[in-house]
Amino acid sequence: MYMTTSFHPPQRILMGPGPSDVNPRVLAAMARPTLGHLDPEFIRMMDEVKALLKYAFQTQNEMTFAVSAPGSAGMECCFVNLVEPGDTVVVCQNGVFGGRMKENVERCGGTAVMVQDAWGEPVDVDKVAAALRTHPNTKIVAFVHAETSTGARSDAQAIVALAQQHGALTIMDAVTSLGGIPVTMDAWGVDAVYSGSQKCLSCSPGLSPVSFGERAIEKIKARTSKVQSWFLDLQLVMSYWGGEGKRAYHHTAPINLLYGLHEALVILQEEGLEAAWARHARNHQALLAGFEAMGLEFVVREAYRLPQLNAVSVPDGVDEAAVRAALLRDYSLEIGAGLGAMAGKIWRVGLMGHASNPKNVYTCLGAMDAVLSAMKAPVKSGVAVAAAKQVYANAV
Amino acid sequence: MYMTTSFHPPQRILMGPGPSDVNPRVLAAMARPTLGHLDPEFIRMMDEVKALLKYAFQTQNEMTFAVSAPGSAGMECCFVNLVEPGDTVVVCQNGVFGGRMKENVERCGGTAVMVQDAWGEPVDVDKVAAALRTHPNTKIVAFVHAETSTGARSDAQAIVALAQQHGALTIMDAVTSLGGIPVTMDAWGVDAVYSGSQKCLSCSPGLSPVSFGERAIEKIKARTSKVQSWFLDLQLVMSYWGGEGKRAYHHTAPINLLYGLHEALVILQEEGLEAAWARHARNHQALLAGFEAMGLEFVVREAYRLPQLNAVSVPDGVDEAAVRAALLRDYSLEIGAGLGAMAGKIWRVGLMGHASNPKNVYTCLGAMDAVLSAMKAPVKSGVAVAAAKQVYANAV
Repeated sequence: MYMTTSFHPPQRILMGPGPSDVNPRVLAAMARPTLGHLDPEFIRMMDEVKALLKYAFQTQNEMTFAVSAPGSAGMECCFVNLVEPGDTVVVCQNGVFGGRMKENVERCGGTAVMVQDAWGEPVDVDKVAAALRTHPNTKIVAFVHAETSTGARSDAQAIVALAQQHGALTIMDAVTSLGGIPVTMDAWGVDAVYSGSQKCLSCSPGLSPVSFGERAIEKIKARTSKVQSWFLDLQLVMSYWGGEGKRAYHHTAPINLLYGLHEALVILQEEGLEAAWARHARNHQALLAGFEAMGLEFVVREAYRLPQLNAVSVPDGVDEAAVRAALLRDYSLEIGAGLGAMAGKIWRVGLMGHASNPKNVYTCLGAMDAVLSAMKAPVKSGVAVAAAKQVYANAV
Repeated sequence: MYMTTSFHPPQRILMGPGPSDVNPRVLAAMARPTLGHLDPEFIRMMDEVKALLKYAFQTQNEMTFAVSAPGSAGMECCFVNLVEPGDTVVVCQNGVFGGRMKENVERCGGTAVMVQDAWGEPVDVDKVAAALRTHPNTKIVAFVHAETSTGARSDAQAIVALAQQHGALTIMDAVTSLGGIPVTMDAWGVDAVYSGSQKCLSCSPGLSPVSFGERAIEKIKARTSKVQSWFLDLQLVMSYWGGEGKRAYHHTAPINLLYGLHEALVILQEEGLEAAWARHARNHQALLAGFEAMGLEFVVREAYRLPQLNAVSVPDGVDEAAVRAALLRDYSLEIGAGLGAMAGKIWRVGLMGHASNPKNVYTCLGAMDAVLSAMKAPVKSGVAVAAAKQVYANAV
């Protein structure tokens, strides 16, 4: 048999839609000795992860923890626990992930009422209001705060307020927003939220931070049918993560990955949420100035742009895949392609968490300039870095 | 706000029911630079993981990969894909995990026909035959190959042969068996199997290797209802893991954890499956000799004992939790408690993967002797290590 040898990955700069660059402190934390999942030392660390996640989400919710699987499972955890067969759920779709929410609602036996907006646009709050008027029995409104597929930010506060007026709960996708832009769960009154470890938290992928408020828990406790997923059944999971004395075994937690999330959250706390948000905004402004100086156009209107995910249109006649391949080959730099309706039309350039820094902004602008110029793309060469530099100079 | 600091876990010896000690090479692999989940280098590594898992499971099944979540999710992946509403499933229960299978069947809308055996006993094949005769419309037989809660091994080959005679598929739990005792999926004709990364593979927890054969895939393709889990829907997951050219984004794979699994499987391949099985058997014999010399009794009859999970009865009058606490405090040694019906009555001493070595056998015997003697437990002191040593001497 052919003998496989150890894998030694190249060192990339990850400026796609996630995973983003992982802080070396996080990588080091993941390599620390494995503990048992009921070890008192590990349980102490879990308590710290809970407290740190409360800070990150800006919530006091006791039911705040990390699902032992990627963001897609965090999404499913919210839906399978909150949606009962027959429930009407208003799902706002303005990109890929609203579509995934619809799949979740339907697989839970619910009815999804879709509120559609163009990809790249935020959720239109008026359309949500209309849907709630037309469907007065709506139990839940689900929306994506920061659409990873387009780079658009929606007005979470307005959507949540509207849902509350109609007596509906809210499920918010904060996969790409958490740590990059303000997510203030309690102030907004969000009932359930999920995120991912690998975006603005700069941890390795594989964990999904979630939080559930009291109204969400009431709905779960009042269920007349069992949650269809045993693995994601909140009442079972919380017997392990919960703070009420004895920890009951539910599943084996991903120990070393949780060390990584702990370290990532410690780093976030050291910097401070406000400082992290400001850093994401500043580096975005610099990248924006550079791209615009080159003549590249942003997909999302200024007021709704995510600083951590910059969607730019591929110039006419440019082979977008060839550009990404050249960036990866010659600069070990990863940027993202478009998804779904935007495949082939946009690039998605992430500036998330640890990766949101001036070095990456300059590297990306320089490399894009070089690659696009070499392909004779219709862009202005030699101006991007200076434009970015000016932004940093003004910010000081 | 209270500032949380970095977490530095103590170095344990993990001789519980899992996670087991992680090979330092695996820890080092997990700390390597994170790649994007669609990076060509990462996809090449995924292909190697698939090939290595085929070797570990002894199968040619193309649909062999690692679910991006712990073993409980691997179990759920098998059930949600294979069990359709209305299906009758014979579930063999002789410990905790058969009960979890029942939960899975019912949450999928199936009917579980339970075949009960005493905890610590193997599955009684005659009872399975009787259940299949009584329920001729059975679609699936589900059983646990190696019961982690009791340390009992069941006769997988006989159960699978019986299911085939009755036209039923099989789902096998190989969480604790894979890598520790023979698991020969194709030779036995198992249709679907799941395992965990953190037992005899000695990787960190958080991944669940699975494999599906042709008959299982046929049943999945013939489904008239959607799989209730989007995250675990095999046809979607395999568009990412599959070998048919283009890789479609489904979810973000746990990159660094998969580096760890890759390294763990490379180590297994270097040693060779047969050598790993022999090593597990040898260290078990030494531990057994030591425990028996002390006067400790094994729960499981000799013919059905798992070498990687040694369940021993707690002597009369001994506070089992105090013993485990002393082992952890004074020797940084973790052994497991009993679960469910066996809570308080047994210890579970794992010798899994990297942790299955003479050093751990001697450490455990010496520490148990010291702790039990100090508690004036009814055991014979000062003889265990010599008894184990004799086993190793005879094995040379």
